[in-house]
Amino acid sequence: MADDNVVYVGSKKGSMDYVLAVVTQFNKGSDEVFLKARGGAISRAVDTAEITKNRFLKDLEILDIETETEELENEDGSTSNVSSISIRLGKSG
Amino acid sequence: MADDNVVYVGSKKGSMDYVLAVVTQFNKGSDEVFLKARGGAISRAVDTAEITKNRFLKDLEILDIETETEELENEDGSTSNVSSISIRLGKSG
Repeated sequence: MADDNVVYVGSKKGSMDYVLAVVTQFNKGSDEVFLKARGGAISRAVDTAEITKNRFLKDLEILDIETETEELENEDGSTSNVSSISIRLGKSG
Repeated sequence: MADDNVVYVGSKKGSMDYVLAVVTQFNKGSDEVFLKARGGAISRAVDTAEITKNRFLKDLEILDIETETEELENEDGSTSNVSSISIRLGKSG
């Protein structure tokens, strides 16, 4: 599965659920894990990265952070722009 | 002033207020502007960067994004951790 090492962060679960998902991916042997989020969930994605790095995987580094603007289609056919973030996590050394 | 090229993004104003602050800094001659935010305002800082880049300053690039964890002291003397972001904006070329 191409998206096996991607954790999509939403607004419904708490940060610790996403931290667990990241730790699980690394324990399965992933070299890198991407945290992806849109809109208001961007803050939670940053929390997830920081908590994972500081409390659970001490050799983890934030390798890269990229942002972009995505165009979403609304139910009435109009479009809205929403910011998104992609945080690339990997082990150092 | 050392902080002249730093725009602190909070949760009270809309993104466009911060976009205007960034554009103003560049128009005053700054080579780089830093957007800084904590907690839930992190999403708004990303929105501010994306809107400024896509709609107002077409030659702008996001040069670097860094996150960290800050420890804040509460009124009762206990401490809370909060994530923060720093987005470095500069003109390309």
